[in-house]
Formats: sequence, C-alpha cells, structure tokens
Amino acid sequence: MQKPIFQTTILGSSGAMPTSSKHTSTQLLKYDNKLFLLDCSEGTQMQLKRMKAPIMKINNIFISHLHGDHYLGLPGLLFTLHLLGREKELNLYSPPGLSEIIKMQFDICKMKLAYKINYHDLEKGGETIFEDSSLKIETIEMLHSIPSFGFLFTEKQGVKNIKKEYVTKYDMPFNKIIDIKNGSDYITSQGQILPNEKITIPPPSPRIYAFCSDTVYTEYFIDQIKGANMLYHEATFRKEFSDIARQKFHATTTEAATIALKANVKKLLIGHYSARYNDKELGSYLEEAKTIFSNTCLAEETKTYKIN
Amino acid sequence: MQKPIFQTTILGSSGAMPTSSKHTSTQLLKYDNKLFLLDCSEGTQMQLKRMKAPIMKINNIFISHLHGDHYLGLPGLLFTLHLLGREKELNLYSPPGLSEIIKMQFDICKMKLAYKINYHDLEKGGETIFEDSSLKIETIEMLHSIPSFGFLFTEKQGVKNIKKEYVTKYDMPFNKIIDIKNGSDYITSQGQILPNEKITIPPPSPRIYAFCSDTVYTEYFIDQIKGANMLYHEATFRKEFSDIARQKFHATTTEAATIALKANVKKLLIGHYSARYNDKELGSYLEEAKTIFSNTCLAEETKTYKIN
Repeated sequence: MQKPIFQTTILGSSGAMPTSSKHTSTQLLKYDNKLFLLDCSEGTQMQLKRMKAPIMKINNIFISHLHGDHYLGLPGLLFTLHLLGREKELNLYSPPGLSEIIKMQFDICKMKLAYKINYHDLEKGGETIFEDSSLKIETIEMLHSIPSFGFLFTEKQGVKNIKKEYVTKYDMPFNKIIDIKNGSDYITSQGQILPNEKITIPPPSPRIYAFCSDTVYTEYFIDQIKGANMLYHEATFRKEFSDIARQKFHATTTEAATIALKANVKKLLIGHYSARYNDKELGSYLEEAKTIFSNTCLAEETKTYKIN
Repeated sequence: MQKPIFQTTILGSSGAMPTSSKHTSTQLLKYDNKLFLLDCSEGTQMQLKRMKAPIMKINNIFISHLHGDHYLGLPGLLFTLHLLGREKELNLYSPPGLSEIIKMQFDICKMKLAYKINYHDLEKGGETIFEDSSLKIETIEMLHSIPSFGFLFTEKQGVKNIKKEYVTKYDMPFNKIIDIKNGSDYITSQGQILPNEKITIPPPSPRIYAFCSDTVYTEYFIDQIKGANMLYHEATFRKEFSDIARQKFHATTTEAATIALKANVKKLLIGHYSARYNDKELGSYLEEAKTIFSNTCLAEETKTYKIN
C-alpha cells in the first residue's frame, strides 16, 4: 500500500527580516489530505496563492513564537479567509499572547470574523497538541530569547496489510480482514489455522518530522527528536558568527548539523538564514553543515521536501 | 529652474486582499529629497527592497485607516528599520488605535526599538499635519466604514527666478538677488530702476497631489482637492457593482471619475482593485473611468507617476 504524502514546502527561508528574494520563515506541511501551516510570516498568503495552495483546507496553524518574522502574515491571512467565506473553525497554536494581538486588531477596525478561532496556548515541550487517527503533533521546547516551540509530527503506526493472494484464495469476509489487520490468525472453512505473520505484511514504519524553530544550540530536546526522518533546524548564521548566534539565541550551520548527528536523524533541512548573506553565499551554509552531517539540504523557497 | 521631483510609486494596488500578482494598496511618494509612505500594506518592506528604495530615508508614514490591508506591513517594516540600525525618530500618522497595536506587538516579544516613534492621531479633515519650507500635508476626510483619511500634498509657492542676463549684465550682488526673488526692484549703479516684473520670471505654480484612500462616493471633500495636478481615488469596483460598493463603503470607476471631473483635477489615478477581477480585466476599469474623465490612468505596481 502506498504511504500517505508527507512533505513540507518552504514558503519563506529568511531569518528576522525578508530580503528582496526571500520571505521570512514559514512552511506548509502536508500529511495525506491535511495541511498545516508552520509559522505564518509576512507575505504568507501571497506565497500560498502563488503556489495555488488550497488555503481553505488549512485548519491548523502553528506559530512557534511571537517574534514578528514568524507571525506577521497571520492577521492578513485570517482576514482573507473571512473574505473568502470561511465558516469552519480554525485552530491557532502559539505561546500565550497571540489571541490578544489578533483580537485587538480586529476590534479596532470593528471586524467580526465569520468563523471561529480556537486559540491554543503552548506552555511546555512534550505536550500532544493534535492527534487524529493517523498523526500526532507534540511541542518541542526551544531555547530562545522568548518562549519558542518546535513541533514534532509523528505518523501513527499503520495497520498490517494482508497478502492479497490469501484474501482471494480463501474468499475472506470483510470482518475477518479487519481482525487479521489487527493481529488475528485466520481459520479457513476446512479448519486450517493460517498464522497472522504468514498472511500479513508488517505496516510501514511510522515517519517523523521534527520542526525546530528559533533556538540557540541546545541538546535539551535531542532525545525527543531521535531518529526523525527529517529534522528542520534553524541555522541563522555560518559558524564564523557563533558568538553572535549565542548572543541572539540562534544557531549556526555546524550547530544544527551537530544536533542532527547526535539525534541520529535521517535528513537535515536548514533555514532561517541571516539577511546579511546573499543567495550566492548559501552554498557555504550547506558546505559547513555537511562537514558534520552529510545528508543536509538547504531550505529553498517554493521547494517541497519529502519526509521518507 | 528645474522643479523638484514630485512623484508617486505604486507598491500595491489590490483592495482588501492581495492576489498572486498584486499587493494590497500602498504608495511611496517622493517630493524633492523627501520620501513618504502612504499606507503600509503586507509585503511593503519587500516591495521597497525589490525597488531598491532607500528605506532609511522614510521619516513619515501615513496610514489612511486601520483596515488590515492598509497597515499590516507596518510592524515588519518598523522591526526591519530597527535591525538596520535606525536611530532617527519616525513619524506615524493614523486614526487612533495604531500606537496600541504596535506597542502591544513589541511588548509581547519584549522588543524595544532603538529609535523613537512619534504617533500622530488623525482626528478630522483639513488639518495640517506636516509642513516644511517646500511642502504642506493636510488630512482629507473620507467616508468609510471606519475613520479613514486621505492626504493632500501641496507644494509651497516657490520664489521668483531672476532672468540670468540681468544678473550678469549688472553683476548683481548676492543679497540683492535674494531681495529681487522676494519682489524688490533693482537700482543699478547708474541709479536706473529695473522693475521687479521686468527682471524676474514668475515661480512655477505649486503642484498638488490629492491621495484619497478608502471611501464611498462623496462630494464632501471636492472643494479641498479642487484643481489638484493629480488625484488618486480608490475605484474598488466596476460600475456594475455600485450597490455592493455603497454597501461596503467603497467607490466605483465611474464614481472616482466623477469626483475627478467635479474637482477639475488634471489627472486621475485609480486603484484598490477588487480581487474578484483578474489583471486582464483592469482594462475595463480604465475604459469605464475614461467615459467620464479622459485623463485617467491605472495604478500599476512598481510604476511611478509624475505629479506635474
């Protein structure tokens, strides 16, 4: 059976301020038919439109922290959803304070949205903030100048698949198929026992995406993200500015790569580039990170990265 | 003598919500060496960067009203100016409420700007809110669903210029030149009186730009903008939607043109197009307006319009 789509698309990759070619940091995560917005920086609604993303299908928006470069596109997007006739509730997850900002802006212009926003205040790491039959999302606690969170997307363990030839051969009834998928053996009409492991294929191993937003280098959350299929870790600076990075509670290329290595993840995606570097200099970001963790790639706007 | 530069550049031309190709409404006005921002919609700082505008030279920002499509780019721009090391004070003009929004956003992320913002609350039309030796700026009261203002930029009457041949012929001293520019006659060393009007050229007539933001059709401010060299008037809808326009406190193409005609302005610039029309349909905006006021042009992003 084909695995559901699990991918992240970069809408912005710049840190702190945009450049003429790069928006501040935002990602659009897709799992199966679900769309999640990770941060919502200035210009996000235009990026979504340019990419023809079905914005009405976004039901959950996760704001890592309340620095402007991570949420200033939100009021505009919320207003646009209203204009487009949204009626469905929308979930907003962020450290405390976002609801006050949003409410004040709409109050001042006497605006009442046609849909309800459910505000979810994030208080600590390791909390499950979203869960359905196929996906679980937990907070990851970052170490930044203000409360900041990453988000851990963990696919649920799938059920076993039955080898097709047995279904046909024994004309298995539907309810028995469910039992087998859940671990039962099968007894044929002749009374023969077919052991579960003989007639099934194990489910694919669950995939994990660890999205780590603004943070200084810290090993605090390594255990939580261990073995992730993909880790996004900010790398605001090249290693030459490790002092400035520490001072501003940000990380460098080599620090992001060190976390990837120690957490034994499969792939590292870096972004949130300082605006002091131009686009041509980003190659050196990649080189530096690769000296420590070879399977690294650069977050590039409008590009989609599969989580496999 | 060459007149100072007086021009407006369109940074955004869409109304209410951006499209994949158009930002919401903002203009960058240049008079001589002064830069003014008229509204500051989402993405303005990126537009300014793309156009290589010297953003540190903007000292006065005018927000017409507190609907998100006219100010949501402001917090990001203010933060970027801070990151770029701005120390000079910045003047923000808007209807009451903007300071609370901005302060709350910076308070929540424990951010202190390195420069001072002077907030100027706009209360009524016809008020002079900026004046220096060459330019005066007054508010124009719009009629919208919330308090909304336009801005009237009036060039100061210049001084007379002396005909060069007289300066050379009589070797006029500097202090006399100043007197003549201010209206004095000139007495030659032989005692001959040269009348002021003989030796001077009248100053160029002062130019006026009337920027009228979101408003329903109203003739209330026509006297104030009479004879302007250029009028920007919103034209959110084509005439087919005049009922919706009225209901939403917006204007149509033919209404904007009617105001231009009645105010006897020289040129009309229309914009704030509804996102329901695509770029190809904007030609019909122009056609409709031109049936009433022929010297109309469309606000097109990144284009500059001279006020002459």
